[in-house]
Amino acid sequence: MVSPSEALLAILEDVLGDIQKPVSLHEPHFAGQEWLYVKDCLDTGWVSSVGSYVDLFEAQLAKSCGVPHAVLTVNGTAALHIALMLAGVKAGEEVLLPALTFIATANAVFYCNAVPHFVDCEQKTFGMDAQKLAAYLAEVGVKKEGGLYNRKTGQRIAAIVPVHIFGHPVDMDALETVAQDFGLPLVSDAAEALGSLYKESPVTSHGLLSVLSFNGNKIVTTGGGGAILTHDPDLARQAKHLTTTAKVPHRWAFDHDKIGYNYRMPNLNAAFGCAQLEQLGGFLVAKRALAERYEAAFAGSSHFEFFKEPEFAVSNYWLNALLLKDGMDRESVLKGVHEAGYLCRPAWTLMHELPMYKDCPRMDLSVSENLESRILNLPSSAKLGMGINA
Amino acid sequence: MVSPSEALLAILEDVLGDIQKPVSLHEPHFAGQEWLYVKDCLDTGWVSSVGSYVDLFEAQLAKSCGVPHAVLTVNGTAALHIALMLAGVKAGEEVLLPALTFIATANAVFYCNAVPHFVDCEQKTFGMDAQKLAAYLAEVGVKKEGGLYNRKTGQRIAAIVPVHIFGHPVDMDALETVAQDFGLPLVSDAAEALGSLYKESPVTSHGLLSVLSFNGNKIVTTGGGGAILTHDPDLARQAKHLTTTAKVPHRWAFDHDKIGYNYRMPNLNAAFGCAQLEQLGGFLVAKRALAERYEAAFAGSSHFEFFKEPEFAVSNYWLNALLLKDGMDRESVLKGVHEAGYLCRPAWTLMHELPMYKDCPRMDLSVSENLESRILNLPSSAKLGMGINA
Repeated sequence: MVSPSEALLAILEDVLGDIQKPVSLHEPHFAGQEWLYVKDCLDTGWVSSVGSYVDLFEAQLAKSCGVPHAVLTVNGTAALHIALMLAGVKAGEEVLLPALTFIATANAVFYCNAVPHFVDCEQKTFGMDAQKLAAYLAEVGVKKEGGLYNRKTGQRIAAIVPVHIFGHPVDMDALETVAQDFGLPLVSDAAEALGSLYKESPVTSHGLLSVLSFNGNKIVTTGGGGAILTHDPDLARQAKHLTTTAKVPHRWAFDHDKIGYNYRMPNLNAAFGCAQLEQLGGFLVAKRALAERYEAAFAGSSHFEFFKEPEFAVSNYWLNALLLKDGMDRESVLKGVHEAGYLCRPAWTLMHELPMYKDCPRMDLSVSENLESRILNLPSSAKLGMGINA
Repeated sequence: MVSPSEALLAILEDVLGDIQKPVSLHEPHFAGQEWLYVKDCLDTGWVSSVGSYVDLFEAQLAKSCGVPHAVLTVNGTAALHIALMLAGVKAGEEVLLPALTFIATANAVFYCNAVPHFVDCEQKTFGMDAQKLAAYLAEVGVKKEGGLYNRKTGQRIAAIVPVHIFGHPVDMDALETVAQDFGLPLVSDAAEALGSLYKESPVTSHGLLSVLSFNGNKIVTTGGGGAILTHDPDLARQAKHLTTTAKVPHRWAFDHDKIGYNYRMPNLNAAFGCAQLEQLGGFLVAKRALAERYEAAFAGSSHFEFFKEPEFAVSNYWLNALLLKDGMDRESVLKGVHEAGYLCRPAWTLMHELPMYKDCPRMDLSVSENLESRILNLPSSAKLGMGINA
């Protein structure tokens, strides 16, 4: 009898071939103009937060993301912090976000002195379940002057923050309807979803604001970095102002008109980003090829179900994911593959199960709890889809 | 009759020679291994927040700064935010800092939900006046269980944050005495003071914690970056934990035991930092040579007094500074030199004169107010002291 861990190893070996171990979950790939652009920064002396690559990367990114405005930040967490402020989130208010997400989503809410309010997800997307959210808000929400209030806590509910888990778009139209019905702004955490399409347009072009991450584990990296994306020129202007210490432009005077942040991406990192973004098309092709190989290999598995993009999306397949069959011992599977040098990983611990967020308001999270116990991410670097086995 | 602006221009031309305009206030200089180390990041694929250059830069920096522990951050603001948290600053409490400083010092206090409490400075160092502070705390402070309280506001006073303005060390021994007398921790904002000595030891080796900035305008740059320095291994461990989302180390699980921050410096930027730090000795020599040329040139001036390092310090002379004679029209001097291509600048607008900090508690700030109206910073790049006029 073949154990689940042995079965998984056989498929990994089949899909990835003879490959150097350990195999990371997601490694960056530098095969473009990174070198040339960084050298240009050095030669011109422009390495810090003002420089031509910051402007260039913003312009190219905006175009790629289907929005007129992009504002670069030091990372995705900083981008979400500012996006939430711009969406009007105030101290003490509540922000709806999935329990199944990376910690940064909840932390950004905390940085606004606001309170995370956890929402369940659906198996189809791993993201927010719009229908379940609508039913919940109808029960728990009270519309008053000034907005929607939580009947139980008395606090205003300020925004909805869907997260496109592992790069797979949530059903944005369904969430837009909920957002409109309850008068809430939609701020989309697209940290993992650069290049993903929702109904043929970039998922980053939906919602009032969306944010990206360019951390080292993302499809495009700047070492560390992020961006705020929006259609609204005034929000973009405010984002730039707030991320550059709210300094009032002047030839020499140092005046600041509000409390701002030192959140701007350095030109050095933006130069890197320009080179990486030029390769995005190739990365997407390679990652899709890898996902298709995984899909075919897991098609007949009695232990694992390969997660396929929702029908309304073309996903970037940032991280390929399996669902283990209910009741399977995830830890022993993880142990088995790690020992063989495949650095697979589970989903994040759910937010309401962490000590600092355990008392936050939340709806029934039974789908998230089930999924969290069954998700397993597979090695997903673009180069694995290019047949580069170094 | 020669106007002050004409007199200043004549001296700038004399000291800086035939130089390409505009002349920046402070430009970085890349003449070391920047290239080689960044290339190594690209070749190895390690560009993000884990990597060998992060460890290496931390070790070299700690050695250079006279402390056993350095923790790299995305910038100096983030470093100060975490240092204040580690010093025990809590929401609603007050933090003593100079009114004459860059906005980041006050903002970092705000990020702790604490309140800036502004202190006057002395002409000798441009930094905190320890004697005046002691007299003020004797008047306004009340010692109770739990610490020192502000008699007027009822809030606890949590820390003293001296700033080494333009790289010139404040009188740390005098401040240490005040800190001990009133039971307050000393967190030193050394953003501008890398390489400066206080009584023969690095100024960064004094106080409970100190912080650095590696912004593009600093003596050593990483594009954007900062560091937390301390003698205390437990504080260093906490600093590393808090700046890396408070993730609990594990081979695959994603657990976080408190609310942390995404504040870690990427390896790409740390590689740059290693190369820059190797050149620090040369930068210091060049900057001192430039300061000496300025000092000699301004010796006979009837309009301007060149600011010289305090007698207990060997300053890095990050930014050379003049004091205009009382009553001189600073704006017309700035206009004159800017039009001629020398990008001199005034000191920062004092913190209590900015709209968001105007209602914060403060002592008499008459020395700061006088100095702010008279300070003028001169072009100070290291390369100007190396005779590089490109």
